[in-house]
Amino acid sequence: MDAAEEEKSTLNARAAALVEKFVADAEDLRVGLHQSAAGGAVIVDCGLAEEGGLEAGRRLAEICMAGLGQVQFAPSVESVGPWPTVTVRTDHPVRACLGSQYAGWQLAKGKYYAMGSGPMRAVAAREPLFEQLGLRETSGVVVGVLESRALPPKDIVAEIAECCWIPPSGVRLLTAPTSSQAGTVQVVARSVETALHKLHELQFDVRTIVSAFGAAPLPPVAKHDLTAVGWTNDAILYGGDVTLWVRTDDATIEAVGPQVPSNSSIDYGLPFAQTFENYGQDFYKIDKLLFSPAVVTFHNLETGRSFRFGALNRDVLVKSFSA
Amino acid sequence: MDAAEEEKSTLNARAAALVEKFVADAEDLRVGLHQSAAGGAVIVDCGLAEEGGLEAGRRLAEICMAGLGQVQFAPSVESVGPWPTVTVRTDHPVRACLGSQYAGWQLAKGKYYAMGSGPMRAVAAREPLFEQLGLRETSGVVVGVLESRALPPKDIVAEIAECCWIPPSGVRLLTAPTSSQAGTVQVVARSVETALHKLHELQFDVRTIVSAFGAAPLPPVAKHDLTAVGWTNDAILYGGDVTLWVRTDDATIEAVGPQVPSNSSIDYGLPFAQTFENYGQDFYKIDKLLFSPAVVTFHNLETGRSFRFGALNRDVLVKSFSA
Amino acid sequence: MDAAEEEKSTLNARAAALVEKFVADAEDLRVGLHQSAAGGAVIVDCGLAEEGGLEAGRRLAEICMAGLGQVQFAPSVESVGPWPTVTVRTDHPVRACLGSQYAGWQLAKGKYYAMGSGPMRAVAAREPLFEQLGLRETSGVVVGVLESRALPPKDIVAEIAECCWIPPSGVRLLTAPTSSQAGTVQVVARSVETALHKLHELQFDVRTIVSAFGAAPLPPVAKHDLTAVGWTNDAILYGGDVTLWVRTDDATIEAVGPQVPSNSSIDYGLPFAQTFENYGQDFYKIDKLLFSPAVVTFHNLETGRSFRFGALNRDVLVKSFSA
Repeated sequence: MDAAEEEKSTLNARAAALVEKFVADAEDLRVGLHQSAAGGAVIVDCGLAEEGGLEAGRRLAEICMAGLGQVQFAPSVESVGPWPTVTVRTDHPVRACLGSQYAGWQLAKGKYYAMGSGPMRAVAAREPLFEQLGLRETSGVVVGVLESRALPPKDIVAEIAECCWIPPSGVRLLTAPTSSQAGTVQVVARSVETALHKLHELQFDVRTIVSAFGAAPLPPVAKHDLTAVGWTNDAILYGGDVTLWVRTDDATIEAVGPQVPSNSSIDYGLPFAQTFENYGQDFYKIDKLLFSPAVVTFHNLETGRSFRFGALNRDVLVKSFSA
Repeated sequence: MDAAEEEKSTLNARAAALVEKFVADAEDLRVGLHQSAAGGAVIVDCGLAEEGGLEAGRRLAEICMAGLGQVQFAPSVESVGPWPTVTVRTDHPVRACLGSQYAGWQLAKGKYYAMGSGPMRAVAAREPLFEQLGLRETSGVVVGVLESRALPPKDIVAEIAECCWIPPSGVRLLTAPTSSQAGTVQVVARSVETALHKLHELQFDVRTIVSAFGAAPLPPVAKHDLTAVGWTNDAILYGGDVTLWVRTDDATIEAVGPQVPSNSSIDYGLPFAQTFENYGQDFYKIDKLLFSPAVVTFHNLETGRSFRFGALNRDVLVKSFSA
Repeated sequence: MDAAEEEKSTLNARAAALVEKFVADAEDLRVGLHQSAAGGAVIVDCGLAEEGGLEAGRRLAEICMAGLGQVQFAPSVESVGPWPTVTVRTDHPVRACLGSQYAGWQLAKGKYYAMGSGPMRAVAAREPLFEQLGLRETSGVVVGVLESRALPPKDIVAEIAECCWIPPSGVRLLTAPTSSQAGTVQVVARSVETALHKLHELQFDVRTIVSAFGAAPLPPVAKHDLTAVGWTNDAILYGGDVTLWVRTDDATIEAVGPQVPSNSSIDYGLPFAQTFENYGQDFYKIDKLLFSPAVVTFHNLETGRSFRFGALNRDVLVKSFSA
């Protein structure tokens, strides 16, 4: 592979190609284009002033994985509940989910706040995992997905550009609040990412994960972002069902496995919003190890053995989504 | 958007582009091309002399929604029964379903009879809903889907052309009997449309419906059209599960909701064919409000509240499809 | 259709076009290209030295059907078990499944052994079914899928070329062991093929089968091929659910039907690997009529009647995949 080919296969180049199509289909997707005051960055509103929708959310999720995963809608799954299902699969779980999809970049300035995800993170490489996993890349165009209540102000765009060593004109940002259709879909498409991130936190070598398939129910769209965060979290905590194909030894899986699904957490069992209330709305008092799918199945390609941890919990989902 | 762009995004222009691909794939789809005696209209037989099939039906359904919805096959859903599932989703429910997919144009001449659907209806605009919902359009090419036992005779083609203010050469008609594979698939893909149409009849402002997802079981293909109408109706009446994302107030949903699913009708509970017999085969004696999905869930984007009405009924489906 | 068009629609031409795209995406699919020592044949390793993956398997399965079927992943089906589902559908079941996908060509030389499938079989036409069903074709490029533990040696490539009356440079071979991700997916995508092959063995005229939809659970990937053969067989024997749309008389279906599903076999009930052991590892002692889906539903398009035979068996699947 020569330099030009390598450039084409960066996470950001892949995502940028998808953003171009997304922008071309803006009207059908009900998303809106903004030129940032900060030197020509492109900002796409997927659910603030614009309506967005299911397809906008689906494609937002695929862009967030830099095109290295497929996101689809499916009918409901009996043991989960009566909601449509959002599935996700990838043969590049580390790059797609940790290198790109994980919302690891918090962006804040004055009243503005956003959870930043997407492949721009791999260029800024501010989180230790990029060094740890060798996921850093350079790119003339960077793509970010923002979960936020507002359009990014020019200071934020400038900060992203600076962190990525490019002029603002190379920045592409797609933004949607959690409490929008597109925002809800793109968060619920994180079932596999959540499993990978927790495993990474537990010191499991995620580079041994070679493929993944995940499913989670699509919750209603909440009015307020806080409720939306609760519902989308619950969709994964109590309805997320993830299968991982790994190459490691069985002892490693058996050691880490029971800690992976959400029911291993002391904060398991209540709708997320209630747990949050119980801790006096202090997010940092919530057990960090809560954030993971309800079920995680490991298929070990080295040994042929399978391990299933956790359980689906329809009751909490029904309680949560009716709140 | 300039005039050329607007022309491209009409329902008929979208559908015509899909018809072109459909015709190019005629052999694989097992559909047959006919040139109408009426001045060069194109007629595509999807299940009369031709076999058609599952894919012909899937694409027929997407054409019937003017390309503004996605139709897919999925495995069976336990609470519905052992049949494959047909799913449909759209972020343009009013245009896709009422402006195009609803079979609101009855075409009859001598022995010929067809239920006409597709975007040609938006040009003819014979039904009050086009004025009510502002869905009228003009187009040099019009696309229609005919549920019928025969190829449309030239009088019918001429009538369609005239009603659409174009020469017959601009008419594209895809036709299949209910009792064909393609016909069965395209009718069962109407779960969302049925919900929208009933809501419109109930004076609910359907323009407040912003997105939709629906699922219904794929019944066997009946030998006779009357039985096929019964089975495809039952697929939606007893197995149709529709989710609507709306922007309205909760009181409006609570008021209309209980009337929306099929179980709100006095004629609910029997296979459709039996109800029809009980009324002495007089279609007009059947409660008009019967025609709706088994379950309709509203997610109100304005308030974040969800409302579920109706119930799936596997027993009636088993009874119906074994008849 | 002129000669050039006919050439384009051969099974091998269709498959070759898909192989070209497959090769272009080799890096993303994690497959590897080899030039055979035998005169420039192209060999694609989908799971030996290369990792392959879910998407490689999905596309391998579609190539194996010569592009005349669609293979997709879906969430789990409650009555089958907690594994993702692999669905397959086709409107060309005889050409796609018997003319191409059936693994009817055993290739062996020294230590090398492979089950050969794909459209190359239709050119070699070594099996009686090609004459019986009129499926024979000629092609300058032939495509084969090999289920094998090793890359095909040049003798094997030369043999394939010779049997297909072409130089080795026209041979395209995609290979994966059963105990790989791609190998597992492509075998489990054979639910419909298994039904067709058994029906053909039972002297049912498969040309009366006009369309098909199948689903089967995706098992773990075994370490050893023998175990993998057991699991993938069990996925179909105990979890395969196939719907066939046919044109025949009901008496023919009623006569053959009870013999079609796996539970009609005297060897039904145990995980396949255990049956194999019980027969002293002699494959040929196993009842040939065992190999078929758990459930086969016939929809007779001639009469409108439906017939369902067999039953899903979650218990055996759980036992098998945990072994």
